[in-house]
Amino acid sequence: MKDVDFVISGGIVVTMDEKDSILPSGAVAIDGPDIAAVGNAESIALEFKGRRVIDARGSLVMPGLVNGHTHAAMTCFRGIADDMDLMDWLSNYIFPAETRNVDPELAYWGSLLACAEMILSGTTTFCDMYIFEDETAQAARQAGMRCLLGEVLFDFPSPNFKTPGEGLRYTEMLIKKWADDPLVNIVVEPHALYTCSPSLLKDAKALADAYGVPVATHFLENMTEPGLLKEKLGQRATDFLRDIGYLNERFFVFHGVYMDDEDIRIFADHGCKVVHNPESNMKLASGVAPVSRMIEAGIVVGLGTDGCASNNNLDMFQEMDTAAKLEKSVRLDPTIMPARTVLRMATCDGAKVLGLENIVGSIRPGMKADLVMINLDKPHLTPMYSEYSPLVYAANGADVDTVFINGRLVMENRMLLTIDVREAMERVRRIAERVKRSMKL
Amino acid sequence: MKDVDFVISGGIVVTMDEKDSILPSGAVAIDGPDIAAVGNAESIALEFKGRRVIDARGSLVMPGLVNGHTHAAMTCFRGIADDMDLMDWLSNYIFPAETRNVDPELAYWGSLLACAEMILSGTTTFCDMYIFEDETAQAARQAGMRCLLGEVLFDFPSPNFKTPGEGLRYTEMLIKKWADDPLVNIVVEPHALYTCSPSLLKDAKALADAYGVPVATHFLENMTEPGLLKEKLGQRATDFLRDIGYLNERFFVFHGVYMDDEDIRIFADHGCKVVHNPESNMKLASGVAPVSRMIEAGIVVGLGTDGCASNNNLDMFQEMDTAAKLEKSVRLDPTIMPARTVLRMATCDGAKVLGLENIVGSIRPGMKADLVMINLDKPHLTPMYSEYSPLVYAANGADVDTVFINGRLVMENRMLLTIDVREAMERVRRIAERVKRSMKL
Repeated sequence: MKDVDFVISGGIVVTMDEKDSILPSGAVAIDGPDIAAVGNAESIALEFKGRRVIDARGSLVMPGLVNGHTHAAMTCFRGIADDMDLMDWLSNYIFPAETRNVDPELAYWGSLLACAEMILSGTTTFCDMYIFEDETAQAARQAGMRCLLGEVLFDFPSPNFKTPGEGLRYTEMLIKKWADDPLVNIVVEPHALYTCSPSLLKDAKALADAYGVPVATHFLENMTEPGLLKEKLGQRATDFLRDIGYLNERFFVFHGVYMDDEDIRIFADHGCKVVHNPESNMKLASGVAPVSRMIEAGIVVGLGTDGCASNNNLDMFQEMDTAAKLEKSVRLDPTIMPARTVLRMATCDGAKVLGLENIVGSIRPGMKADLVMINLDKPHLTPMYSEYSPLVYAANGADVDTVFINGRLVMENRMLLTIDVREAMERVRRIAERVKRSMKL
Repeated sequence: MKDVDFVISGGIVVTMDEKDSILPSGAVAIDGPDIAAVGNAESIALEFKGRRVIDARGSLVMPGLVNGHTHAAMTCFRGIADDMDLMDWLSNYIFPAETRNVDPELAYWGSLLACAEMILSGTTTFCDMYIFEDETAQAARQAGMRCLLGEVLFDFPSPNFKTPGEGLRYTEMLIKKWADDPLVNIVVEPHALYTCSPSLLKDAKALADAYGVPVATHFLENMTEPGLLKEKLGQRATDFLRDIGYLNERFFVFHGVYMDDEDIRIFADHGCKVVHNPESNMKLASGVAPVSRMIEAGIVVGLGTDGCASNNNLDMFQEMDTAAKLEKSVRLDPTIMPARTVLRMATCDGAKVLGLENIVGSIRPGMKADLVMINLDKPHLTPMYSEYSPLVYAANGADVDTVFINGRLVMENRMLLTIDVREAMERVRRIAERVKRSMKL
């Protein structure tokens, strides 16, 4: 009989392991940050004694969701402008609002509020790109959330740096500062090929290689982007990235809406990965990413919400539902993007995109204990004929009751245990007042 | 000082009236089933004394949502089969599951569970088509929900009738039985043009006219339907409906995915209405309805979830979000289907489709008191720069706290007051066991 910190016992355990194992009355033993064992409730009870036993009967236990693309602090700009032409939205609302308002205070409280929202809707890992990412890292640390994050890099000045060189040095500081952190991981993030000079892109790659961290960027998000880039670079964007050495398994992109068959083939050949952002792509009318073709070609695809100005929430359950339905709808094929595929995008495959596949994304012994419990005792989850379908097509984030990250209980019965959510909301409301004044809204 | 039953005081009141009035600190006085007055909190307090005063500070008060297309009892088949070819899904799962299992017990408990789910997510009125609709009416009555419902009519036998004639007589019974009911309204509902003979369609219309009730049907839902109907009817489906006298302001259709510009023009000319079902159309890969063209042409368009086998929930907040984003996405225009338009589809315009526009759909004196309160004190609804955007793009059904229907409190602080939800879930779980056995699942 081995003593462990927690035994979660009696729930339906959806492991998302290689065999798609689902345990109808399962249990998970958690010791320190690790999953010590997974099995049926009776056999786990014979082997493990939890210092705390959590009764999961009537619940479903699954891996915490991986939100592959966020701009967490943009919760402060949630709904500041909607239903607008992209250039109007960016030039007249988002960019000026950012220039006038983004500072370490906004970055910290906006990110902490995002962490609250993400935990409340079952996300345990997020991949972030924004400004003052050290503040986002601190917010994630306060929340007890796992993350992969990077300072956004581009040619023009940001509220955090005057030159691209400063941005790179700030990124290097992040890499060093958070090197040994159990939760915070760093990625080098040039914003996009149209906002970064070739030399910045090369420097970013060199920095990533020097420290062995991944690189990620926005890629072919809009209809005009392939043409603009071809003109700017004198070659196709994907060929350019290949020529400057970007394309390997430690490179991933956000959106990829206008990746054509050739781009997809090259990405698949090089092991590059993609984060799909259906709701943001829909809201901004960017187009529909060829996500089923990517998966068919062998690209590992994750799922992300994008920032709150273009979604406008961080609910990965809604994102899964939309990811499945959008692809069926535009390809006129109800069999593609089945629930299991979409759930993998939001768990094990999402973890693989971020290079965290040996740490999170499935419930297996030796993995970190990032997992969520769903209360199934709800009208909209009744009856249940199978497990994946209700999670993708019927559930929403508010069905998540309890969340563990790195073996730590961060939410129990919808009470956040690491974040003073009243304070976070109050701080962001005050920041929003400042934003409104700055924009004369 | 007038005594009234309730004063809801201090919330943001989103009225959805003709002027789009929004009261930042408003109040609603409710007397019996009626909205007695709407105004700012201070002036209402001077004029009305509530036998009960509900503090709505920190909440948003809005009209209850109108779900324009449901098959309520199909909650019993939620997720029974997904991600399949339409004909495989229908022929091998839905139809046999229905034939073997639909009876008054399934119809009642499935509908009652649907009512629970709908109230919990802010819907106060639904338009239903299914089998044994008298049971659905009784469930709605038990739940205290408003509805417009009709027995599904087609040429072949149903679990409830052997011949179309019996189906029509059952419908007539419904019309007479519920004639004076304050909540239950009846509509004559031939299933679709491809499942009903011209003579059944004509008889259905004659019955509706005899009693002055509306007619509704599934229409041009699938890609093959226009061609099949042209072959069957010898003319375009819309022309056929016009020739047999269907087209007036008391006729509305579900889906309308393959309505072309000519169909849209004829519908607009005749005042016919449409219920848009984006999530179901997406999940079944039916195609994308030309909903912005319909609205532009002057057709009043409502919004509906369809049944739980093809969605798989009844959450109108998610449906609004999807309706806005899908249309932007496929038309490549972020400015179409703005939040206000979509919210109208789910409230005042939805009520108009059902012919209930003088009863529900907006908060105005003299309307029935069907309204919901949203708790705004949530991370994903923070901050708030405007009112329509968070409702459409950030909220979900679980944000609804309190619901009034016909002046009666049916949910308070997420406690259902009219439905024993444990019993409803337990009954439906037992029915699902029977369904599984019948299908050898």
